[in-house]
Amino acid sequence: MISFVNDYSENAFPEVIEAILRTNLEGNPAYTNDPHTENAASLIRGKIRNEQALIQLLMGGTQTNLIAAAAFLRPHEAVITVRSGHICVHETGAIESTGHKCLEVEGAEGKIRPEDVERVCGPQNWDHAGVLTVKPRMVYISQSTERGTVYSRQELQALRQVCDRYGLLLYCDGARLSSALDCSDVTLPDLAALCDAFYIGGTKSGALFGEAMVIINDSLKPDFQYIAKQRGGLLAKGWLLGLQFEVLMQDGLFESCGRIANREAMRLKAGLDRLGIPFSVNSPSNQQFYIFPGWLLEKLNRDYAWEVISRPDPAHTEIRLVTSWATKPEDVDRFIRDTERYLADGQPL
Amino acid sequence: MISFVNDYSENAFPEVIEAILRTNLEGNPAYTNDPHTENAASLIRGKIRNEQALIQLLMGGTQTNLIAAAAFLRPHEAVITVRSGHICVHETGAIESTGHKCLEVEGAEGKIRPEDVERVCGPQNWDHAGVLTVKPRMVYISQSTERGTVYSRQELQALRQVCDRYGLLLYCDGARLSSALDCSDVTLPDLAALCDAFYIGGTKSGALFGEAMVIINDSLKPDFQYIAKQRGGLLAKGWLLGLQFEVLMQDGLFESCGRIANREAMRLKAGLDRLGIPFSVNSPSNQQFYIFPGWLLEKLNRDYAWEVISRPDPAHTEIRLVTSWATKPEDVDRFIRDTERYLADGQPL
Amino acid sequence: MISFVNDYSENAFPEVIEAILRTNLEGNPAYTNDPHTENAASLIRGKIRNEQALIQLLMGGTQTNLIAAAAFLRPHEAVITVRSGHICVHETGAIESTGHKCLEVEGAEGKIRPEDVERVCGPQNWDHAGVLTVKPRMVYISQSTERGTVYSRQELQALRQVCDRYGLLLYCDGARLSSALDCSDVTLPDLAALCDAFYIGGTKSGALFGEAMVIINDSLKPDFQYIAKQRGGLLAKGWLLGLQFEVLMQDGLFESCGRIANREAMRLKAGLDRLGIPFSVNSPSNQQFYIFPGWLLEKLNRDYAWEVISRPDPAHTEIRLVTSWATKPEDVDRFIRDTERYLADGQPL
Amino acid sequence: MISFVNDYSENAFPEVIEAILRTNLEGNPAYTNDPHTENAASLIRGKIRNEQALIQLLMGGTQTNLIAAAAFLRPHEAVITVRSGHICVHETGAIESTGHKCLEVEGAEGKIRPEDVERVCGPQNWDHAGVLTVKPRMVYISQSTERGTVYSRQELQALRQVCDRYGLLLYCDGARLSSALDCSDVTLPDLAALCDAFYIGGTKSGALFGEAMVIINDSLKPDFQYIAKQRGGLLAKGWLLGLQFEVLMQDGLFESCGRIANREAMRLKAGLDRLGIPFSVNSPSNQQFYIFPGWLLEKLNRDYAWEVISRPDPAHTEIRLVTSWATKPEDVDRFIRDTERYLADGQPL
Repeated sequence: MISFVNDYSENAFPEVIEAILRTNLEGNPAYTNDPHTENAASLIRGKIRNEQALIQLLMGGTQTNLIAAAAFLRPHEAVITVRSGHICVHETGAIESTGHKCLEVEGAEGKIRPEDVERVCGPQNWDHAGVLTVKPRMVYISQSTERGTVYSRQELQALRQVCDRYGLLLYCDGARLSSALDCSDVTLPDLAALCDAFYIGGTKSGALFGEAMVIINDSLKPDFQYIAKQRGGLLAKGWLLGLQFEVLMQDGLFESCGRIANREAMRLKAGLDRLGIPFSVNSPSNQQFYIFPGWLLEKLNRDYAWEVISRPDPAHTEIRLVTSWATKPEDVDRFIRDTERYLADGQPL
Repeated sequence: MISFVNDYSENAFPEVIEAILRTNLEGNPAYTNDPHTENAASLIRGKIRNEQALIQLLMGGTQTNLIAAAAFLRPHEAVITVRSGHICVHETGAIESTGHKCLEVEGAEGKIRPEDVERVCGPQNWDHAGVLTVKPRMVYISQSTERGTVYSRQELQALRQVCDRYGLLLYCDGARLSSALDCSDVTLPDLAALCDAFYIGGTKSGALFGEAMVIINDSLKPDFQYIAKQRGGLLAKGWLLGLQFEVLMQDGLFESCGRIANREAMRLKAGLDRLGIPFSVNSPSNQQFYIFPGWLLEKLNRDYAWEVISRPDPAHTEIRLVTSWATKPEDVDRFIRDTERYLADGQPL
Repeated sequence: MISFVNDYSENAFPEVIEAILRTNLEGNPAYTNDPHTENAASLIRGKIRNEQALIQLLMGGTQTNLIAAAAFLRPHEAVITVRSGHICVHETGAIESTGHKCLEVEGAEGKIRPEDVERVCGPQNWDHAGVLTVKPRMVYISQSTERGTVYSRQELQALRQVCDRYGLLLYCDGARLSSALDCSDVTLPDLAALCDAFYIGGTKSGALFGEAMVIINDSLKPDFQYIAKQRGGLLAKGWLLGLQFEVLMQDGLFESCGRIANREAMRLKAGLDRLGIPFSVNSPSNQQFYIFPGWLLEKLNRDYAWEVISRPDPAHTEIRLVTSWATKPEDVDRFIRDTERYLADGQPL
Repeated sequence: MISFVNDYSENAFPEVIEAILRTNLEGNPAYTNDPHTENAASLIRGKIRNEQALIQLLMGGTQTNLIAAAAFLRPHEAVITVRSGHICVHETGAIESTGHKCLEVEGAEGKIRPEDVERVCGPQNWDHAGVLTVKPRMVYISQSTERGTVYSRQELQALRQVCDRYGLLLYCDGARLSSALDCSDVTLPDLAALCDAFYIGGTKSGALFGEAMVIINDSLKPDFQYIAKQRGGLLAKGWLLGLQFEVLMQDGLFESCGRIANREAMRLKAGLDRLGIPFSVNSPSNQQFYIFPGWLLEKLNRDYAWEVISRPDPAHTEIRLVTSWATKPEDVDRFIRDTERYLADGQPL
C-alpha cells in the first residue's frame, strides 16, 4: 500500500535520529536549558534575521497553538480563523479548552482575506459594539494552509495592515512551513517582520516531533515558558528537541524537506491535470486536492491510500494527496500510470 | 423618550417588589434552602407537570447558560447553536470560557432545523469522524429566539428526534419564554417532555432578576448546585429569587407578562404592516424586526429609541422594536401615528 | 428561633427596597450604563478619595472574587491566601475554576503576615525558583477576616511593602467591610491607597445583594467589564445595583450598618466574657467565635441558632455568633440571660 | 562534572533509539492507531494482568496528570495530594489550569495516609458539609514518591479502603515506577487491582520520552482519547511512543532500569551512612535525600552536581542525589571517596 495520506508517516530524516544516537550518554540539563536548544534557537534567530526573537521548542502543533492562545490572550479575547483552520476543526476544541472563542470567517481557499477581518472588526459588524461580545484579538493563519494554498508576501502585508488597524496580533501556524517556503515568496525574515509570533513545524518536516515557537512581539514574551510548562509543553528531555532543530536548521535540511515534497506534489499534479482529473484547489504545495469519480477511487484504493475530504455528489469524492520528504518518485509515477490505465477502461470522469 | 429598546428597562411587577418589602425582616436560611424557594420550585413543578424536575434559581441568563455548559458537558463536548444564538454572540464567550466550543449552524430565522443538526453530526460531515474534532453533545435553542420567532410543538418534536438519533441533549434558553408561551403551541409541559433542561426567564418577564433552571434529565441532576456555586450562581440571599418566582408563578402573573407584551407587539406590527414598512422577520412575539429608511429613523429618533440590528443598504436600517409588560398602549399608538405622519411628508420607503 | 447564624438573613435596609419601589417604571439603560450606577460610582470615588478608580458593581462575593482572578491574573499566576480565606474553602473552588492556584499560607487568626508572603516568595522557598512552579502574583486578604479579626493600618502597610518587594498585587475582599471600618483604623481612603483593588460588600451590609469592585491600579482596569460579562457578572438591570449603592453610600447608611452590628457583637462578647465562656478568637467585629460545652449548646439550641466551626474536644464545640444591622438588642440580652441561667444549673464549662 | 541531579539526563536505552532507526521508513498510521502502539498496549495489559485496561500513550508526566484531571473529574471535584506531590508544586499549576483544586494534606515522608484522607472527607471536617466547598474526588499518589519513599501493598490497600469509603478515585503517578517496583512489594498487577488509573513512566526509565496511562475503572474510559487530543497529548507520530514501550516492556528492560538505578542508590546510601552524613528521608529508591554541611558541598561542588531541597539551618543544606539506568558505578565510588577525603580534613558535620 502506497500512502499519500499525510506527510508524517515516517519517523525522521536519518540525520535526526543519528544525532540522538550520537549524543546518547552526553548528559544534558533538563527543560530546554541545554546547549543544543540554545544552538538551535541561535540558528533559527539567524535564519529569521531577528536576534531578539524568543524561541521555545514544543512538542506538537495542537500543543503549540493552545499554548499560544493561553499565553497571548486575556480571557475575553478571541481568535479569528477561517472555518477550515486547523484550530477550528481538527484540534478537538483545544483553543476553547483554554477559554477562548474562535471567530470563524469564510475566507477563500483556506486563506483569510483583509475583508474577512474587516467584516468581524469593522463598523459594519453591529455585534462587536461592546462588552457583550468577545473582543477579536488574534488572527490565526497557516502557511501553507489546510487547503494547500500559500499566502504571498503582498497578501501577508495586507493582513498585517488590517491587523494594525484593529489592534490584532497576527499568528502563523507553520506546521507545513517547509513546503510553503519553497512555493511562496514569503521568506522566514518576512514572517518575522510581519507576524507577532509563528511556529516552524518540525513534525511534518523531517523531525521525529517538535515545533519551534518564534515570538517576535516583545509584549508576548514574558513568562511564556511558565505557560508552556503548565500545559505540558516543556519537555524534561528538552535537548531532544534542540538536537533535532540543530540538525534541521543546518545544511539546508529543513528547506530540502519542502523542496522534495513540493517537487513530487508538482509531478503528481502535472500527471492528474494532464489526465483531466479536476482539482478542487489549485495548490502549489505538498497537499493536493482532487475530485475523483468513485469507481476510479475504488480501483486505486487497492494499492494507494489518501484522505477523503468531501463528497461533492454521489458519484464523486474529493480526496487529499500529500507528499513528503520521504515520498518516492517511483510511487508518484506508478500512481499516475495506474490512474491513466484505469481511465483507459472507458468509464467517465 | 419612549423606549422600545428591550424588555428589561423597568424594575419589576409591583407585586414582586411588594413581596420583598413584606418579608423584609422575616429571616431566611441562606443559599436557596428556604421555604420561598421550595414553594417556587413546587409551583414550577406543578406547572410543567413533572414532580421530579430539579429546579435551581439563578441570577441571569448568561450565568444560567454557562452553568449549564459547565455542569452538563465533558471537556471535549460541544454545543450546537445557530449563529444568532445568544450564547454564540452576546455572552462575551461565556460558553468558551467554560472550555466548550459552540458549533455554529446556519438555521433559519433564528431557529435550528433538524437538517442543521444532521449536517454537523451525520455521515456527510467528514470532519466529525473521530477524536480530532469536538464531540457534538448539546443542542441550544431559545424560545422565543433572538429573531423573535418561536418553535412549534412539531418543530420541537422533530429536533428531539434528531437529538435522540445522535445522542444529543436538548437545552432551551427561556429568557423570553413568557412571550413564547403566548404565541406558540408549545406549553410548559411540552418543554418538560421534550427538553433535557431549560430555563424559565424572570428578568425579561417582570422579575427584578432571576432565572429558573429546570433539569428534567436525571443524569444531569447530580451536584448541579456545586457548579452553580462555583460559578457565582448561588445567591447568599437565595430566597429573594424564591420570593419572586413564588409571585410570578401564581395567579397567572408570568403568563400575563407575555400576553401583554405580545398584544402590544401585535398592535405595533399591524400598524407598521399597514404603513408598508417591511419586516425582516415575520415575528409573532414581543421582538419585532423592521427595515426603515434612514430618513424616517432620523425623525423618529427624536422621541423613540430602539436597537439597530443591521444596515442592509446605505439608505436602510434594520431595527428591533421590543415590547414588554410595561409597554403603554398609548406609546405604541403614538409611534405608529408619528411614523404615519412622517411618511405623509412624501419621502420614499 | 433567634438566629446568630449570619449577617445576611434579612432582605435589606427598608431605604434600599423603597428606592427600588420608587423608581419602578423609571426606565433605565441596561448593563450598568445608567445614572444610578454612575452616581453610586461617583459617591464611592468620593468616599475613597480617588477620582480615577474604576467602579464595577457585581452581584455577590464569589462572583466578584472569581472575576478578579480571571481579570487580574495570567494563567500561571497564583493567589496567596490564608487557609481560612473565603476563596480557599467556601467558594467551591471558584478561583481554581478560572485556572488559578491558591497558594495557602498559615497566617494567624485569619490574617496574612508579611512573613507568610516572605516564606512563599523569598529565597528560602526553593520551590519557587523557576518555571516549574506557579508564580505568586496576588495576595488575597479579607477585611474583616473570616475569623472576625481586622488588619490595622500598620499591618496593611507592612503587607503593601512585602507585596511591592515581590511584585505582588494586594486585593481585599470587603464582604464585611462595614463592620471592619467601624473597628479598625483602616479607612476607605487607606484601602484605596494601599490595595490594587478591593470590593465594598453590599450583601452583608444591608443591600439586597451587590458588591462594588473598586480598581485602583491602572493596569488592572482595561476591559474589566468584558470579563465581568463573560462570567455572568454584568446584570441586565444593572441599575438595581446602582440604586442600592446610591442609598448605602448616602447619609452614612453603610457605616451605620457596621456600627450597629459591632455594637451588638460587643455586647454579646462582654456578656460571654463575663460568664467565663472562652473565645477562640478575640474578635472586635461582628463575628464572634466562642467555645461552648456541648451540654450548654444543647440547651441554647432550643431557642437560638449559630454555625458550628469545629469540635476541639468531644465535650466542647467552637461556634460562630454573627450580628448584623438587623440584630435586635433584646435578642442579645436574652441570649446572655439564658446562657447565664443554664450555667447556674451547675455543670462545668 | 558528574551529575546526580536527576534520572533524565541521558537520551535513552540504546535499544530504544535503535528501534526508531530500524523502523524509520516503515510508514505508520497516525495518532497511535498503529501496530506498535497496539503491541505495546498488549504487552502492558499482559504485565498488569488486566486485558480490559485502556492504555493511552502520552508524552510527559505533567501532560499525563493534567489529562487525567480533565478527563476524570467534573468541575467541582478536587484532588487530594500531599503538599510535596508533583502536581501540587512542580507542574506550574497544571491541575488548576484544568479548573480543579488540589486539596493539600500533610502526609508523612511524601506519602498520603488514610487518616489524611479521613481528615478531609470525614465528619470532623466541618468545611466539607456542603456545596460551598469543593467535592474531594480523587486521591493522587506517586510511586515512588517525590521524597523517594514507596507505598507497601498493605498501605495501598488501606488507601483503597478509605477511597471506597468516601467514593474517591485512586490515581497513581508512576513517573518513577521502575524504581518503585524494585524496592516495594507492590507489583504491576497490584497497582491494576488497587488503582482506578495509573501511569507507567517512560521518560525516567530509559525511554526518550513517553508515559503509558493505564485506566482500569470502566467509567473513566469513554472518550479519553478526545481529551488527550484536546490537551495536545495525542502525538501525530504516535507509533514513536508505541515503539519505545514495545522495547521497554520486553526482555525485562523496564524492570532492569529500576534495578540498576536502585543498586547504585543503595551503594551511595551505604557510603554516606557509613560516613555519618544524616539522611532526611530513609529512602529505598533511586532518590536519596541527605543533609550536608555547607563547607563540604562547596568542595564537592567542584566535581559533582545535585539538586538543593532546603536549608534546615545556615550551616546545612538538604540535597537530593538521584541515580538512573545510566549511572556509572565508578562515579558513585568516586563521590563517596571524595566525600570521605574531604571529611578527613577535620571540619565538623
